[in-house]
Amino acid sequence: MAPAGYGSRVEGIHAVAAAADSGRVQKLWVEKRRIGRHGVSEIVKRLDPSIVKSVQDVRSHAETDAPQGVVAECAPISPVTLQSFASEKAAVLVLDHIEDPQNVGAIARTALAAGIDGMVVSSRRAAPLSAVAFKSASGALERLPVAVVASIPEALSRLKDAGLWLVGLGAAGDSTLFGLELLTEPVAIVIGAEGDGLATLTAKRCDVIVSIPMAGDTESLNASISAALASFEIMRVRSS
Amino acid sequence: MAPAGYGSRVEGIHAVAAAADSGRVQKLWVEKRRIGRHGVSEIVKRLDPSIVKSVQDVRSHAETDAPQGVVAECAPISPVTLQSFASEKAAVLVLDHIEDPQNVGAIARTALAAGIDGMVVSSRRAAPLSAVAFKSASGALERLPVAVVASIPEALSRLKDAGLWLVGLGAAGDSTLFGLELLTEPVAIVIGAEGDGLATLTAKRCDVIVSIPMAGDTESLNASISAALASFEIMRVRSS
Repeated sequence: MAPAGYGSRVEGIHAVAAAADSGRVQKLWVEKRRIGRHGVSEIVKRLDPSIVKSVQDVRSHAETDAPQGVVAECAPISPVTLQSFASEKAAVLVLDHIEDPQNVGAIARTALAAGIDGMVVSSRRAAPLSAVAFKSASGALERLPVAVVASIPEALSRLKDAGLWLVGLGAAGDSTLFGLELLTEPVAIVIGAEGDGLATLTAKRCDVIVSIPMAGDTESLNASISAALASFEIMRVRSS
Repeated sequence: MAPAGYGSRVEGIHAVAAAADSGRVQKLWVEKRRIGRHGVSEIVKRLDPSIVKSVQDVRSHAETDAPQGVVAECAPISPVTLQSFASEKAAVLVLDHIEDPQNVGAIARTALAAGIDGMVVSSRRAAPLSAVAFKSASGALERLPVAVVASIPEALSRLKDAGLWLVGLGAAGDSTLFGLELLTEPVAIVIGAEGDGLATLTAKRCDVIVSIPMAGDTESLNASISAALASFEIMRVRSS
């Protein structure tokens, strides 16, 4: 059975505009008083009037706290397969049970900017690719390929079989992320949940665990920051 | 006249625990049903019972959406002077009208982890160092020195007089952030608001504008991501 699609609910101006660009919007609730405003008016103009419904307040339809006057029901996006990531230049992020959808969206946005090929997320405990994730991604989830898997450790085995090196980010790393030679190879970076870090089984599957050097007695970085540093380090190492 | 202090309102478990560590908590509202819980109980135990007030719901006292059962009124933190940043190893972040307090807090947290000396924020249009910023900083604003200034361009002139190079982050940079030699010198990194970028007057004061290379037609990075990449690039360049 193919995994279900994601992204059927999109809210916020940037995210809805991107969904409209993708031709995914099937119904749009828009706030009357905002229809003429910059951002909102461009979205409304490009959609068929029959699918636009103006309402007093979209917040009763919204999942996010600040939908910015636009809530869209969309055709879902199909996840990609893990096999689609197999390439000589592969650069993939694997999110190991990151639960905050705002983080998942932020990671997608930065990954796209850094030229990452795609992202692997768990369909179980992890943050769903919710309206909150789409808003935080600011359009990036329309374009970044995402594989949705039942088991992260199993997905890692399959990525390894596909020729990718598995690099885990963890506080107790054997070496540092910065300047890591392995990043020139096909690679999947595995990022754990803030606080908990990588799950034991996940860490065991990794070829190497690397850490981000930190000053003083700082505890940890937000997962979206760790992901950003790793994503751009791949770009930096490959271009130097 | 010395600028007013900041941080008189702190919410959320990590942020309030850090404020308690700093001895700043003067009054704590705590939710009855959470008093025994991990995190909250440790905060309550270390405070004088006379300043702890248990209530049914702290949210009516809270500025943040999710205060996690604890809202603290605190002795304010005094801002530092710009002169205090003058040193041969200076590494400072200047926030040019970043309006989202969650971003300001996230930047403080990452800056502390990257060994940045401190942060300069505007007292005018910029995000105040609010309860939202403190929650997002997860304790970092207790320890990261912050200068609060009336004018960012004027502050830049004074940092330059103090011997710091001024490096602006902008999409239209003359060169790339990655590997920038200048980062080994005393340096202030100037970060603009997402979308708007650096103000014209701010950009003019900078010695150099550098950009973060991005893949494809990506628009921009979140300011907290740009700040993280710059902060850790200083660490990387100085340690290599």
